[in-house]
Amino acid sequence: MLEMDAVKKIIRRALEEDIRSGDVTTSFALAGPETGQATALAKEDLVVAGLEVFREVFRVRDASLVFTTALSDGARASRGTLLATVEGSLASILTAERVALNLFQRMCGIATLTKQFVDAAAGTKAKILDTRKTMPGLRILDKYSVKAGGGCNHRYGLYDGILIKDNHIEAAGGIAEAVRRVRGQAPLMVKIEVEVKNLPEVEEALAAGADVIMLDNMPVDEMKKAVALIGGRVLVEASGNVTLDTVESIAGTGVDFISAGALTHSARAADISLKVTRKT
Amino acid sequence: MLEMDAVKKIIRRALEEDIRSGDVTTSFALAGPETGQATALAKEDLVVAGLEVFREVFRVRDASLVFTTALSDGARASRGTLLATVEGSLASILTAERVALNLFQRMCGIATLTKQFVDAAAGTKAKILDTRKTMPGLRILDKYSVKAGGGCNHRYGLYDGILIKDNHIEAAGGIAEAVRRVRGQAPLMVKIEVEVKNLPEVEEALAAGADVIMLDNMPVDEMKKAVALIGGRVLVEASGNVTLDTVESIAGTGVDFISAGALTHSARAADISLKVTRKT
Amino acid sequence: MLEMDAVKKIIRRALEEDIRSGDVTTSFALAGPETGQATALAKEDLVVAGLEVFREVFRVRDASLVFTTALSDGARASRGTLLATVEGSLASILTAERVALNLFQRMCGIATLTKQFVDAAAGTKAKILDTRKTMPGLRILDKYSVKAGGGCNHRYGLYDGILIKDNHIEAAGGIAEAVRRVRGQAPLMVKIEVEVKNLPEVEEALAAGADVIMLDNMPVDEMKKAVALIGGRVLVEASGNVTLDTVESIAGTGVDFISAGALTHSARAADISLKVTRKT
Amino acid sequence: MLEMDAVKKIIRRALEEDIRSGDVTTSFALAGPETGQATALAKEDLVVAGLEVFREVFRVRDASLVFTTALSDGARASRGTLLATVEGSLASILTAERVALNLFQRMCGIATLTKQFVDAAAGTKAKILDTRKTMPGLRILDKYSVKAGGGCNHRYGLYDGILIKDNHIEAAGGIAEAVRRVRGQAPLMVKIEVEVKNLPEVEEALAAGADVIMLDNMPVDEMKKAVALIGGRVLVEASGNVTLDTVESIAGTGVDFISAGALTHSARAADISLKVTRKT
Amino acid sequence: MLEMDAVKKIIRRALEEDIRSGDVTTSFALAGPETGQATALAKEDLVVAGLEVFREVFRVRDASLVFTTALSDGARASRGTLLATVEGSLASILTAERVALNLFQRMCGIATLTKQFVDAAAGTKAKILDTRKTMPGLRILDKYSVKAGGGCNHRYGLYDGILIKDNHIEAAGGIAEAVRRVRGQAPLMVKIEVEVKNLPEVEEALAAGADVIMLDNMPVDEMKKAVALIGGRVLVEASGNVTLDTVESIAGTGVDFISAGALTHSARAADISLKVTRKT
Amino acid sequence: MLEMDAVKKIIRRALEEDIRSGDVTTSFALAGPETGQATALAKEDLVVAGLEVFREVFRVRDASLVFTTALSDGARASRGTLLATVEGSLASILTAERVALNLFQRMCGIATLTKQFVDAAAGTKAKILDTRKTMPGLRILDKYSVKAGGGCNHRYGLYDGILIKDNHIEAAGGIAEAVRRVRGQAPLMVKIEVEVKNLPEVEEALAAGADVIMLDNMPVDEMKKAVALIGGRVLVEASGNVTLDTVESIAGTGVDFISAGALTHSARAADISLKVTRKT
Repeated sequence: MLEMDAVKKIIRRALEEDIRSGDVTTSFALAGPETGQATALAKEDLVVAGLEVFREVFRVRDASLVFTTALSDGARASRGTLLATVEGSLASILTAERVALNLFQRMCGIATLTKQFVDAAAGTKAKILDTRKTMPGLRILDKYSVKAGGGCNHRYGLYDGILIKDNHIEAAGGIAEAVRRVRGQAPLMVKIEVEVKNLPEVEEALAAGADVIMLDNMPVDEMKKAVALIGGRVLVEASGNVTLDTVESIAGTGVDFISAGALTHSARAADISLKVTRKT
Repeated sequence: MLEMDAVKKIIRRALEEDIRSGDVTTSFALAGPETGQATALAKEDLVVAGLEVFREVFRVRDASLVFTTALSDGARASRGTLLATVEGSLASILTAERVALNLFQRMCGIATLTKQFVDAAAGTKAKILDTRKTMPGLRILDKYSVKAGGGCNHRYGLYDGILIKDNHIEAAGGIAEAVRRVRGQAPLMVKIEVEVKNLPEVEEALAAGADVIMLDNMPVDEMKKAVALIGGRVLVEASGNVTLDTVESIAGTGVDFISAGALTHSARAADISLKVTRKT
Repeated sequence: MLEMDAVKKIIRRALEEDIRSGDVTTSFALAGPETGQATALAKEDLVVAGLEVFREVFRVRDASLVFTTALSDGARASRGTLLATVEGSLASILTAERVALNLFQRMCGIATLTKQFVDAAAGTKAKILDTRKTMPGLRILDKYSVKAGGGCNHRYGLYDGILIKDNHIEAAGGIAEAVRRVRGQAPLMVKIEVEVKNLPEVEEALAAGADVIMLDNMPVDEMKKAVALIGGRVLVEASGNVTLDTVESIAGTGVDFISAGALTHSARAADISLKVTRKT
Repeated sequence: MLEMDAVKKIIRRALEEDIRSGDVTTSFALAGPETGQATALAKEDLVVAGLEVFREVFRVRDASLVFTTALSDGARASRGTLLATVEGSLASILTAERVALNLFQRMCGIATLTKQFVDAAAGTKAKILDTRKTMPGLRILDKYSVKAGGGCNHRYGLYDGILIKDNHIEAAGGIAEAVRRVRGQAPLMVKIEVEVKNLPEVEEALAAGADVIMLDNMPVDEMKKAVALIGGRVLVEASGNVTLDTVESIAGTGVDFISAGALTHSARAADISLKVTRKT
Repeated sequence: MLEMDAVKKIIRRALEEDIRSGDVTTSFALAGPETGQATALAKEDLVVAGLEVFREVFRVRDASLVFTTALSDGARASRGTLLATVEGSLASILTAERVALNLFQRMCGIATLTKQFVDAAAGTKAKILDTRKTMPGLRILDKYSVKAGGGCNHRYGLYDGILIKDNHIEAAGGIAEAVRRVRGQAPLMVKIEVEVKNLPEVEEALAAGADVIMLDNMPVDEMKKAVALIGGRVLVEASGNVTLDTVESIAGTGVDFISAGALTHSARAADISLKVTRKT
Repeated sequence: MLEMDAVKKIIRRALEEDIRSGDVTTSFALAGPETGQATALAKEDLVVAGLEVFREVFRVRDASLVFTTALSDGARASRGTLLATVEGSLASILTAERVALNLFQRMCGIATLTKQFVDAAAGTKAKILDTRKTMPGLRILDKYSVKAGGGCNHRYGLYDGILIKDNHIEAAGGIAEAVRRVRGQAPLMVKIEVEVKNLPEVEEALAAGADVIMLDNMPVDEMKKAVALIGGRVLVEASGNVTLDTVESIAGTGVDFISAGALTHSARAADISLKVTRKT
């Protein structure tokens, strides 16, 4: 599901950023032929995401490294779990280590946080959505990690979905006018979503023919009214500074989706260590 | 101090990632000639970093946009402060908005967190250092932001500094052997740092001729002894899961530097909004 | 509406392909300072598309060239019409000429052909759609040209729309199973279209919850029945070797869209000449 | 004869254009492990060109796919002929299918059209030449396809041949002056061709020392006189809106070469289908 | 005559190679606003080549720098001559200095050496040619510099000229067979040259229809006989470890061209200094 | 020690520069299946450098070629020594030959020249250093070759070492001020070197806290006094138009390092031939 050609570009760029003219420590400290094993351990409870990316960093650096894991993305791993092992040239492993961890720790971090949101909304129909507030250059990894954590993907970018936000409405001069302009030109396969701030705007968006309505920063009570007003005619998304504290009550309003920028713009890196043992 | 050619590449890649075949919402919702102003506001107290990057995203998208700010990187901005304004084509502003904010919010987030570490170590000689635990592809922005927050930069990558870590020592078969191998081959201008875990290793590193010694995950008491043992002969860096809670006591041990991966691998995005007003 | 950063990449690549180490004819035959004017004329009736691309080729080659046109994309131009003029360094104009014409002639060719399909379907509700049978590397130009000719865009690529074709159905083991698998994982903003070959498959697709149904290579009579069966519940697209001869009768069946690969995979270049006059 | 490194770049760019963040249909509709076979069939009589390109698209997407063909480029294939088979992961085949066909159908289309021109000139010494009116970004494929169809290649670009056209002559102030300027500076290995419109210009070009003379848009009668006048001293090329209707009479004039832009700027895609069978 | 788009790529790559994450000396040693002037002086007698490249390095780094020169490529400059001045930001000048000099010194070095070869052959009809023994990645600069020094260009690469060397003849099984195979397939505009080692091979090459004959490593006496044998029917090139000591006697044999790999594979950098003065 | 990912980029660029649309000689002169062997011979005494690069060019062109060598970088090879053999497709070997030799001959040339400098300084403690006067785009190869010849590497670029030169001192307004500004901002792992012209400046640099002092263009007598004055407190580098004639006496002054731009900006290509034998 991850587009690996795109992933390899990210990996090559990251390795180049870190290594450039050469890993002066490793290339001098190791005689060259040293081999051994590296083990990746979870240092805290986490949800796994990005095993294939983790493996690929080592493979891109040195195709002869052997990567093994007993887990799959989406699995929960408690503190102390062995996540993966890499065997082969120690020089290759040490040079690739930091980039491999930087990517894998971020992906697990996002999946872990997403899972917390998903769990908080459990028992309702609300699905957890990501946003475009992703790390520049790493969007496909961020969005993949959200799915691995049990979330769903909103659009990937400005090209594959129409979301008419308050700034567009301000620029176009009103919801009705904005939707009217868009509907005539939109590619066939792309849905139209409209951001609204209150009930009158909900009605306006419905009348204009939105496919999805986003309730932006609405109080929970008003959200319930909006859901009732919409009555299942179109999909409803709740949005706006959603946190782990608020997600449950929002999910209780009956919305179809809850989007949270925090999943990707503020996820902590999961704590994972890589320890090397030289073959004796 | 920011290498702008490298920054432009990051911006172009981020815009391409987000826009690809086109911003279908903006290109259809706006007739084209709409102009106006966007204002960026701090939604929480923060330290500013990346104004030039923020400006450049808009400039890359549309060279005719006019960017204004009264602030400089490193400034503190309290909640509600006007950070910058952008004037010109609303279509250009709306298409660039998300990428501009994603980069700027991350940079301010890192600077803000760094400042908290720096403040916690105030009154000691300890300087706050970053690590290589940066966002893949964004390292120059991450490291710049640490400086804007009052921190210092460790090496940029594997190419411009020698840091012999536990894994290298394991692979080479000991501190003395590792340093010996490296010293004979290192480029003239690059310093050699050795990671140690206890006092005997400190002595070993000193004897081997390290330029800098990193005390890794040492208890504060042992750190004090290490600093005394080293006695100013080489620079000393403390490292290992340093947090805002522990940084002050570590700084009190007399080390020269304290490095914290959290500055860059787990910084929250600062909360900043961009609001558009159409020219009437 | 055309994403000009992407267009510039296409232009740079095309110029590089043609010029490489240098235009040996022009750089030697012209002393350098010669200036003059080039006029682009329609040598046949055509629909204009790509004026901005045409202009940009000259601008990329030499920013000092002055491009003028009185037309807009989508305009009809009869044989002999002056399409545009370029003034400035003759060396720059001559070196850029072929690439500029190759792109512009193709774009006008597609728009002209599309217009013929659109005219043939006039008086019905059927809109003319493009496909993914575009020239590799030039898709954004091809799809833009279809719009300039009065057509509409289907999805841009495999990433921004779900079209379950016969081969997917064969691979998944049936329409219902294919749609079921997709629905659970699709990004929120992307519609689902299903290709069907006969009336039972239409019913299957409806039951499975398709957003759009594509009638593939159906006889006109059966198409009418399919449209009746669907009864406006979802959008209907007709597809499969549609030609200028058949488009009118297909449009008469009541389908919402007719897609034609021929618009882009087999469009002739429009006949356009560029004639240079040296300033006396 | 095809420079495969350059071909791979074209293929990667085309796949990226089509797939970007992922083939959402295939990745969701197929469980993953489905395997099977795809057969490519000629749906009309055609000349084969680009088998290696066709194969390479699948190989670039998935190195484990097995491609088989019994044909070679340049072969005639009648309607219904099996052109090639691909076996392996159905997901890989379906994601690569469109790009593979877009390239292969274009190449076969050009070869097929070229063959018609070659056949029309059979029995004369005239060889059929391509021009620089190729698809931007795909020139090496276009020129290769012309050869596969029995044609010959003119220069590849502005860098590997000198062709002094009417616009250059206008800019330089005459044939003699243009040739004089060029002759003193041209790289050793590059020939000089001059475009002429009438018999006096033929004499001028001969006197100036052209290596090749191009008769542009001349009536057949005048062409015969030009050929006689030149008398085998230099090579002669006929050019200017040559069509299948006119090529035979032009070939009869005794020219050495006939160039036709239509071979590449207006070739139809050959009709080829790819049908998938799932392994039971 | 220099293709500046290609030159800019070379410059960008060279600056990136040198600067990467930043010029730490300049960015810290200069406060930023310092301005001044840099003067480039010839520290030895030389032939100027690459002024436009020299200028462009500064322009690429900082478009506000002002570059002035009173010279043109091809001019002789004696020791002490002022070659050019650059004015503006000292930080920009200092960061670009090394790359600018590395390129300019090489180009002047090649032109200076070429001029010595040209002068040694003065009074004969022999022209001095370059080869493909150029610096990888810098061929267009190397070949341009040869012209600036009064030499001529052989082919640019493997794509724009056919040179059948001893290794090809060995592989093909003889001169006649090699030429026969090539003649049937060569693009129209590309000449065919054959490398020969002795008089019988000269006759073989003539009979096979070579456009140019290269006499490889022949003694001067035999060269004279070869020239007589060829009798002006085709162009003749002398080749093979030609030095400043031997070029005059080779030129005296009556060959049309003398090629020397040394012009580009072993040229010394010309001695040029850049001195900065801060504006007071 | 050579970063092979970066080397491959250099090789790909060089092959593309030479081959572009195709090797017209080889692709036409060889039928295709010819196989054989090429042997690389030293045509003069030399020091070997770049065997891995030499091998990689052939591997990048054709992964099935088999490369064999009995030597290692740094070895001395006398005239006539067999350096390496390549076996396999003759077409592949002939197309890659020139690029492979261009790179390998340069690398051996640099190593050979460096060795001469190293030998001249033998018996002293002075090590031979390279500079940034390397071939643009080839720096990693140039610096690697210096090491293969027994030399040492100075900094790689402007990013990994601080060298305050006369121009920086002029711009900053003095040695003390320049060092002061830099010291406060330099990354932790980067050393600071100061260029001085006389003894008072040596004292100034020492007082300012330089890590390394460069004596620029000093007479040998004064150099001795400088070394005495410094007294081992910091490292000392001698620089400025060092030649094979002067290096011994400079080494005798007791400096730690002698840097010579000539190693890389003016190295001759080593004379190496590649001869092909067709398999019978």
